[in-house]
Amino acid sequence: MRYNNVYFCIMEIDLSKIKSPADIKGFNLDQLNLLSEELRAVLIRKLAAHGGHVGPNLGVVEATVALHYVFDAPKDKIVFDVSHQSYVHKMLTGRIEAFISPEDYDKVTGYTSPSESEYDLFEVGHTSTSISLATGLAKARDLQGGKENVIAFIGDASLGGGMALEALNYAPELKSNIIVILNDNQMSIAENHGELYTHLKELRDSNGASSNNIFKALGYEYIYVKEGNDLRSLIKAFREAKDQKRAVLVHINTMKGEGLPVAETNKETFHFSAPFDAKTGALLNMDSSETYVDVFVKTILDGIRKDPKLVLLTAGTPGAFGFSPAHRAEAGKQMVDVGIAEQDAVTMSAGLAKGGAHPVMGVVSTFLQRAYDQLSHDVAINNLPASFVVFYGGMFGMNDVTHLGFFDIAMISNIPNITMLAPASAEEYKAMLELAMDNSEGPLVVRTPGGALVSQKEPVNKDFTKYVKIEDGSDVAIIAEGAFLPFARKAAALAREKGVNPMVVNPRILSNVDEEFLDGLKDFRMIVTVEDGIIDGGFGQKVSTYMNRYGVKTINLGIKKEFVDRYDVKDFFKANSLTPEQIAEILVKG
Amino acid sequence: MRYNNVYFCIMEIDLSKIKSPADIKGFNLDQLNLLSEELRAVLIRKLAAHGGHVGPNLGVVEATVALHYVFDAPKDKIVFDVSHQSYVHKMLTGRIEAFISPEDYDKVTGYTSPSESEYDLFEVGHTSTSISLATGLAKARDLQGGKENVIAFIGDASLGGGMALEALNYAPELKSNIIVILNDNQMSIAENHGELYTHLKELRDSNGASSNNIFKALGYEYIYVKEGNDLRSLIKAFREAKDQKRAVLVHINTMKGEGLPVAETNKETFHFSAPFDAKTGALLNMDSSETYVDVFVKTILDGIRKDPKLVLLTAGTPGAFGFSPAHRAEAGKQMVDVGIAEQDAVTMSAGLAKGGAHPVMGVVSTFLQRAYDQLSHDVAINNLPASFVVFYGGMFGMNDVTHLGFFDIAMISNIPNITMLAPASAEEYKAMLELAMDNSEGPLVVRTPGGALVSQKEPVNKDFTKYVKIEDGSDVAIIAEGAFLPFARKAAALAREKGVNPMVVNPRILSNVDEEFLDGLKDFRMIVTVEDGIIDGGFGQKVSTYMNRYGVKTINLGIKKEFVDRYDVKDFFKANSLTPEQIAEILVKG
Repeated sequence: MRYNNVYFCIMEIDLSKIKSPADIKGFNLDQLNLLSEELRAVLIRKLAAHGGHVGPNLGVVEATVALHYVFDAPKDKIVFDVSHQSYVHKMLTGRIEAFISPEDYDKVTGYTSPSESEYDLFEVGHTSTSISLATGLAKARDLQGGKENVIAFIGDASLGGGMALEALNYAPELKSNIIVILNDNQMSIAENHGELYTHLKELRDSNGASSNNIFKALGYEYIYVKEGNDLRSLIKAFREAKDQKRAVLVHINTMKGEGLPVAETNKETFHFSAPFDAKTGALLNMDSSETYVDVFVKTILDGIRKDPKLVLLTAGTPGAFGFSPAHRAEAGKQMVDVGIAEQDAVTMSAGLAKGGAHPVMGVVSTFLQRAYDQLSHDVAINNLPASFVVFYGGMFGMNDVTHLGFFDIAMISNIPNITMLAPASAEEYKAMLELAMDNSEGPLVVRTPGGALVSQKEPVNKDFTKYVKIEDGSDVAIIAEGAFLPFARKAAALAREKGVNPMVVNPRILSNVDEEFLDGLKDFRMIVTVEDGIIDGGFGQKVSTYMNRYGVKTINLGIKKEFVDRYDVKDFFKANSLTPEQIAEILVKG
Repeated sequence: MRYNNVYFCIMEIDLSKIKSPADIKGFNLDQLNLLSEELRAVLIRKLAAHGGHVGPNLGVVEATVALHYVFDAPKDKIVFDVSHQSYVHKMLTGRIEAFISPEDYDKVTGYTSPSESEYDLFEVGHTSTSISLATGLAKARDLQGGKENVIAFIGDASLGGGMALEALNYAPELKSNIIVILNDNQMSIAENHGELYTHLKELRDSNGASSNNIFKALGYEYIYVKEGNDLRSLIKAFREAKDQKRAVLVHINTMKGEGLPVAETNKETFHFSAPFDAKTGALLNMDSSETYVDVFVKTILDGIRKDPKLVLLTAGTPGAFGFSPAHRAEAGKQMVDVGIAEQDAVTMSAGLAKGGAHPVMGVVSTFLQRAYDQLSHDVAINNLPASFVVFYGGMFGMNDVTHLGFFDIAMISNIPNITMLAPASAEEYKAMLELAMDNSEGPLVVRTPGGALVSQKEPVNKDFTKYVKIEDGSDVAIIAEGAFLPFARKAAALAREKGVNPMVVNPRILSNVDEEFLDGLKDFRMIVTVEDGIIDGGFGQKVSTYMNRYGVKTINLGIKKEFVDRYDVKDFFKANSLTPEQIAEILVKG
């Protein structure tokens, strides 16, 4: 059955009446199949209109129905890895209205969320955590004499992350009930990398019978489900796994994007999509204005053509920085994707730099957190010329609580030896990327600005260890980095109307202060710092610590240290005293 | 051959003449065997007198000789995982005098170090990095048309770390020369955990012939060496692996502590040892004074007896917090060791807390870096009551550049929702540990103080979100955490001699400021903060940011943001203006 025209699909089961998994327990197989069809139809309608993780959710409709049919959540505990594939789970656990009614579409998050439902155990958004979480739940159960099943539902791509492999290794040692459902859709966000995937193919090709079996080697009872989108097969397998007192791995072979032809065909494009036409797959709202990502793609591809030793690395997210399959093909051997394995990618960069190559890794702010020690121990201590370009840092990035980009300045800039740069314009960004590609000094991080692309007319001062005075002023200075430089200029203009004439400064470097420049401000009355990150541990506090020797008052503006979920960016400016008007008031009244 | 009495061993090869591996290339097997015996004898003499990683190095004497006999370093590139087992490598690569001559014992570090020798490629001290580094070297070689061999030498325990597994998965995809030597001594620092080790046993028991073979599954050519301390077998295997254009894994079965009976018998004790009697194994210098670790062991064991839901977790380092095999046996099911897999342990803690258990993880400061994202994404975002007790934080801990403990305050305290506490006495530490065991609030980190145990007579104020005034004073305040509180008191006494009467404050909480307390200082002339960590991102900067609203001058004392290696702690105080005399001067002249 295909849903090219989902809007006219006739519903034979009233989905709005499904309030919990109990409501499907009495279904026979035909009804469960019908249910799956209807869930998929409704899901496609929402995904097309609203956007979201298309392929991952369409691929697991049947598996999710079977899970809730066979197991008894919330008593049985299901942990979804990444949880970007939990939409059908949400539909079956009391939140169907957020999928049926367009006005309710935003009432659920895109990930599991305990504040939404007792069926959701954790806020999750990063990969590879589910088995560790499940071992914790299983151990807690065993200490308390519980009997419930604990299930980790994890995709093939997530399984390649080191943490998942650690837990995969440890879980059977519990000698107790733990069920790992390996949802093998033969894709990461892009294609998979690593020989684990050749091995999974060997298992699929042998219908699970290969004598070489990594899961059996690790002590799992192994169950293979060839038709992972077939309810009968899934129910049988899950029933077999249920209530066992040992570690069981159920390997299900599913189709990413199942049931939506454009998503089945274009798996990478439809991993996550903005609103689209369900028939053609075309995006409904195309924005053709140039972005910082465009600058990155062009600059790096130019670099790759010129320098055969330049290597662009990613840990499974080339799309995050605009590298389409065509761009990757063009980069050829100079592109490395290690799969969702940030630790490996960062430390491989150290090895590349030591070996004389020129590594540049593109990485999403929130995911770089997964390689803190690799940045510190492997790259920074060894002071190797490896470069990292961070995307979606700051408040203009992703706003799910699990994907916030506010923390990278505090995380990165306090590691010794790392130079962390924040450009404030496309021209500065390009110059910093060129430095990153031609890096011979030591670890370098360039933070891609958030927000719309800004151009500057003045030539770029390429000594990025130096602050740049943008507007002259006296008595008061405002030092604002990245996307907040335009805010600072606007605030300064407003302050001038009130008789205060602030100097406006673009710091560019976040990891160290420009002491010479700051010495020149020692007789100022006040310095205001503004950054696109949390105040704690940020560059502003470095300015404060330095200026304290002169007794100059400093005010640090930035984001309060807290987790927030799905904020409105304009409200968020205001809540953090970051609108130009609020900044102007501080400049005037101090 | 056994070396119970190494001092009388007669040397038939003049080790002092071995300046590089070239000097052993012409040896025949008998000479190589003799060389190995002599290297071991010299090594035992140094280890007994000086201390160091005993078992790991004695186990790889033959493997290291074979490596340098078969391969051509430094052209061929050998990356040692952790590199704590690189002593014999150092002996063969121009640094023999640091093992022969007691006066030169400290001329080499305990790990590979590029500043020492071109044969050492990286500063390394954490586990599980070698394969990632090797893939980087191999890729750099391939882009430049090189032909050299790239070798990662990794222990069985390190292989269980997620990053090693990520790289193990990726390396064969290079379709190029990369050799992983798996040094299987059947031990971690303590015993191994995880089913990978059952599988390694299956491989050993079948003499490498088991049809189930995780390495073959991942695409490696697999070579098994049953006698991993036998030179002939090792040389044959390494020759077979050499120059292949694919990924090869050589699995060598070695004996940890080989050749020193006390180390063979007590593998855990002799993983690392202070100076000892080579015959009896007794430590030469026993210090029986009570330590913070003793307080930890006693308090946690008491807690385990009282609360069946309390779980103590470790990632392979129970000895770091004093949990001997006997203590672990007593803790029984309430002790979890996941192997060297910090990510898994931290996130398992989140699962345990969610499941209603009471997790407390003991962890070494520098190793907690390996689980930054797990602390943030899994524990902190979910605001789960999991507790972490950090050891060897601050400047009193380990002083190898790869094991510095200065960075944990900046790393941990800037993650929202985490309460980070720093006790300044044994009584405060115990009270905080009791809070950690009875944690129902949210993520809690207790940082074990460095230095000698301090006692306080006053009752402990258990509202740890509140600063405590230790000595009254006026106009100037000094807020000093942990091991620096006694320094602050001494400095205050010195300042009083000069007519300045500072208030002395114990902050206890590092992750947030006590606003009410600080409000009370708004008319003070100056506040000095002192912390046992880097200034950047530390608690002192939080005090500064807060006090800036009042225009009160603050001075942040702590450690400069830089990597240092094997510092003398007293020199280090002075270099960072942290002696009581220097602090007193700031209090007076500030």
